[in-house]
Amino acid sequence: MTLAPQADVRPTFVRPQTDRASLTIKGTDRVGIVAAVGTLLSRRGANIVSLDQYSDPQDDAYFQRTVFSKPGLRAELPALREELRSRLKDDFELDFTLRDMATPKRVAIFASKSDHCLLDLLWRHRRGELPVTIAMVISNHPDTADEVRTFGVPFFHVPSTGPDKTAAEAEHLRLLGGNVDFVVLARYMQILSGDFIERVGVPIINIHHSFLPAFVGAGPYTKAKGRGVKLIGATAHYVTEDLDEGPIIEQDVARVTHADSVAELKRRGADVERAVLSRAVLWHAEDRVIRHSHHTIVFP
Amino acid sequence: MTLAPQADVRPTFVRPQTDRASLTIKGTDRVGIVAAVGTLLSRRGANIVSLDQYSDPQDDAYFQRTVFSKPGLRAELPALREELRSRLKDDFELDFTLRDMATPKRVAIFASKSDHCLLDLLWRHRRGELPVTIAMVISNHPDTADEVRTFGVPFFHVPSTGPDKTAAEAEHLRLLGGNVDFVVLARYMQILSGDFIERVGVPIINIHHSFLPAFVGAGPYTKAKGRGVKLIGATAHYVTEDLDEGPIIEQDVARVTHADSVAELKRRGADVERAVLSRAVLWHAEDRVIRHSHHTIVFP
Amino acid sequence: MTLAPQADVRPTFVRPQTDRASLTIKGTDRVGIVAAVGTLLSRRGANIVSLDQYSDPQDDAYFQRTVFSKPGLRAELPALREELRSRLKDDFELDFTLRDMATPKRVAIFASKSDHCLLDLLWRHRRGELPVTIAMVISNHPDTADEVRTFGVPFFHVPSTGPDKTAAEAEHLRLLGGNVDFVVLARYMQILSGDFIERVGVPIINIHHSFLPAFVGAGPYTKAKGRGVKLIGATAHYVTEDLDEGPIIEQDVARVTHADSVAELKRRGADVERAVLSRAVLWHAEDRVIRHSHHTIVFP
Amino acid sequence: MTLAPQADVRPTFVRPQTDRASLTIKGTDRVGIVAAVGTLLSRRGANIVSLDQYSDPQDDAYFQRTVFSKPGLRAELPALREELRSRLKDDFELDFTLRDMATPKRVAIFASKSDHCLLDLLWRHRRGELPVTIAMVISNHPDTADEVRTFGVPFFHVPSTGPDKTAAEAEHLRLLGGNVDFVVLARYMQILSGDFIERVGVPIINIHHSFLPAFVGAGPYTKAKGRGVKLIGATAHYVTEDLDEGPIIEQDVARVTHADSVAELKRRGADVERAVLSRAVLWHAEDRVIRHSHHTIVFP
Repeated sequence: MTLAPQADVRPTFVRPQTDRASLTIKGTDRVGIVAAVGTLLSRRGANIVSLDQYSDPQDDAYFQRTVFSKPGLRAELPALREELRSRLKDDFELDFTLRDMATPKRVAIFASKSDHCLLDLLWRHRRGELPVTIAMVISNHPDTADEVRTFGVPFFHVPSTGPDKTAAEAEHLRLLGGNVDFVVLARYMQILSGDFIERVGVPIINIHHSFLPAFVGAGPYTKAKGRGVKLIGATAHYVTEDLDEGPIIEQDVARVTHADSVAELKRRGADVERAVLSRAVLWHAEDRVIRHSHHTIVFP
Repeated sequence: MTLAPQADVRPTFVRPQTDRASLTIKGTDRVGIVAAVGTLLSRRGANIVSLDQYSDPQDDAYFQRTVFSKPGLRAELPALREELRSRLKDDFELDFTLRDMATPKRVAIFASKSDHCLLDLLWRHRRGELPVTIAMVISNHPDTADEVRTFGVPFFHVPSTGPDKTAAEAEHLRLLGGNVDFVVLARYMQILSGDFIERVGVPIINIHHSFLPAFVGAGPYTKAKGRGVKLIGATAHYVTEDLDEGPIIEQDVARVTHADSVAELKRRGADVERAVLSRAVLWHAEDRVIRHSHHTIVFP
Repeated sequence: MTLAPQADVRPTFVRPQTDRASLTIKGTDRVGIVAAVGTLLSRRGANIVSLDQYSDPQDDAYFQRTVFSKPGLRAELPALREELRSRLKDDFELDFTLRDMATPKRVAIFASKSDHCLLDLLWRHRRGELPVTIAMVISNHPDTADEVRTFGVPFFHVPSTGPDKTAAEAEHLRLLGGNVDFVVLARYMQILSGDFIERVGVPIINIHHSFLPAFVGAGPYTKAKGRGVKLIGATAHYVTEDLDEGPIIEQDVARVTHADSVAELKRRGADVERAVLSRAVLWHAEDRVIRHSHHTIVFP
Repeated sequence: MTLAPQADVRPTFVRPQTDRASLTIKGTDRVGIVAAVGTLLSRRGANIVSLDQYSDPQDDAYFQRTVFSKPGLRAELPALREELRSRLKDDFELDFTLRDMATPKRVAIFASKSDHCLLDLLWRHRRGELPVTIAMVISNHPDTADEVRTFGVPFFHVPSTGPDKTAAEAEHLRLLGGNVDFVVLARYMQILSGDFIERVGVPIINIHHSFLPAFVGAGPYTKAKGRGVKLIGATAHYVTEDLDEGPIIEQDVARVTHADSVAELKRRGADVERAVLSRAVLWHAEDRVIRHSHHTIVFP
């Protein structure tokens, strides 16, 4: 075992993000974008902390993520946004988002009875690993209510039985409206209607318990056992109307053998699911993920 | 996302182990051991569920783990043990342990302020993934008391300040005495004395936050950052008097880059630590690990 | 860099297998199989080197692989086989194979233009890592002829153009007939007819360049790019009449990003393919793989 | 198996690099570097293909790698270099290198009897995976001469026996002088003198057969077996006078068990070694690796 003469404190991983902003850019590649952004920021005395870019050679699409620091950022943000709009939008016809990283994104977590993904997100958040505000947990089962509230997070039980989800989804929209920046389905076992996906108006991240596109639909572990695969996996993706077809954010796998039962596949898979989902949530929270048709660009 | 028309129940991974026993054997390799064990068990109508063996070509050491099932096992166990003693001990000069798998091993978890390994073990146990009875949690800090008790597990706060650990260790021995079959140090940040290790009389499993033998001692993540490694790791091992030198049970690693700070190494490392420790605890609980001088045999 | 005062010789991994046999058993689980095999072998003075077994709880199927050593094995083999037949086949209704490990299995490798899997197998064989005799390489392209012959392996060019493979397959059967114990398709880009698979009468192992069942059929890397996956994989499997549906022997994956082109996926994938195929060939050569309907049992 | 109706050609991974340059920058972080580089390049009509940067928060060190394309690059390179010198060196006090990517780096590979790393580099180069010119192979054993020459690469046998390496190293320097941009030690089993390292004047990359800093020095697999580790590894690093202490470029590991002999560790390790070394060589060839005291920055 190990002696630690230094202080035994819980690390705080989410560094103070005051006076720090993220700028993401998306559009058609042209000469001079880096120069334009760099010049604009340096004239304002902003220091670029990181800059990543990617040009898709297939369709000349251009993506850039820049994090910069600037004392007194908050006050300057409106003027900076205006300047970026003029330069990037008008001159280069690029779309952009500019976000003050001092304000964490707000997220709602949807869950059902399985608690491994839900608890893992709550734990990581409490440890300071996830730079988000968990605004609420919504579940179609009351089972995890007490535990969620222990973390100081509001819990709402919205039952969803029978094929008609209209009432439940209306309640979901009422709870979410204006309160969240994205939604995470942490093994939520209900299908969202296309109408809901459209009306909620924020990105939705789901964890699918297979290595997509293998084993789409229900019961992937049973299917994996049936096919005799030697690895099982999990996939975090943005939700679209097409079930299990949304843009993939992250995937991982674990090794299994002929001797593993379906229950054992589920146990090993649960570890992969919670790891993959937490990475996808972290990356989305830090503006590292840019959607591009049915793909994602994920900056390191 | 995924529809699950089948029941959304939490899986119970720990199968009912009634009428099932594990038999581990250790000694010098000789012709006929498998025949002797197989014949003895089949005469009693026991069905071998799994059998693994390993012979070390270096020193002719022989290791075997057999799990078998037998209706009415509990009543027959004393007679069976006697028969095994006569056959294995007397005829073959082999050591063996025979354990009724209906009775889970009892474990005490030692922790400090860091909660990731502790909570992961508690949560896995609640999910039915760890076939143990968590008898108690002992910590030198009171911070995790409430959360531990939420899981229905007794929590004892045993402060340990100053260089003299005599009083604290006496209290540890008083709490543990006769109550546990093994001890797990879940990022417990105190050195155990050789005297304690001897007197406690049960195996102790520790998680070291590096890929041993790299970065022994304190502050392994700081050392890893200093050396510029591209992977960090964690090691679960049995505790011996020689710090960080005990027999290794399990290890794993995660990829890092030059851009990761020490805090980020700790964050990524925490995931590896809890995964590695939980595997080591599971395997020890299922009698899969046999110590052999300063090594381990780990049967799959 | 590293000084090696010890001799700098190429290791020979394939240990002398003289006086060593492998016994694989397959059938319905019953009490007493281990005892029967163990007793039979110990009476003949054979020492069990390793014994693995697996019982499928779904269908009570029983599988066992035993490796044993016995001085003067070759002379005793016929009698031993007879005894096993009487005991296992007649008493227990089990199927078994008994193989003298002093005689390596003979393999034919089929290849096309891509040489990474072919060369890796030839090189591993030369290093002493694959306990097989490479009887021949058959290719529908002459490109690799010189290189293959450098390894001392016969090369046969059997062109295969047009939809009618009858002539080519007849030539294949003529070359293989009686000469090989199994066939490996090392990125062989021609479909084998069901008639050929049946008539060749030996197992055929193929490497598919995707993580099956994802991306069956042609062009898996292009499909993977199209779907935006974050991992690519390869699958070694036995060939059946159903394309890409045969029992899986081994799989592995590599991480990719949005920035990787299809060519880059192929480059990374080639590494996975050759690693996965070489493991499958090794395990098949050592009788570690048992087919069970459309699954495999792979003993460690 | 898989049908490929599309052409079965060997992919060419090394894209035509004509009219493409890499620019690496190193120095102290200051506001405006990205803007300065971006503006300078865009004024010349150069398009930035990729840009990565990293600022070390510890010591304010700044690192940047930019790849840009420009029609007619070669003719403009001298003027561009002068302009960069004026802007980066004089105004920002930054060091930089500018390299025409149409001219591959020239490498010499040193080897001994073990061929796995050597052959893997030769194969990958022939497949078009490594954008280098392999100028020569130098070995202290003649064993691999024929095979190396099959790849069209000059082979020089420079015996090196006895403790005095002066004559051998003089011959090495004579062969290398002016002919190579870096040296790769592909399991070369001789220690290079500090004098040689200094006089050769180009970077030297070595593959060490352990997960450094574990198991420095000779016989790492034997040491790994002795310690009973559950993973073995390999490390590619730049060579410095301090044995096994140079800046790490890349590392990886493979899982092993108690049952693996030292010979088996070597076999599994060889796969890791060749994979790790080839990645390090590729990254160095593409200017992705920047040395910073005893660390490396590796841009993706």
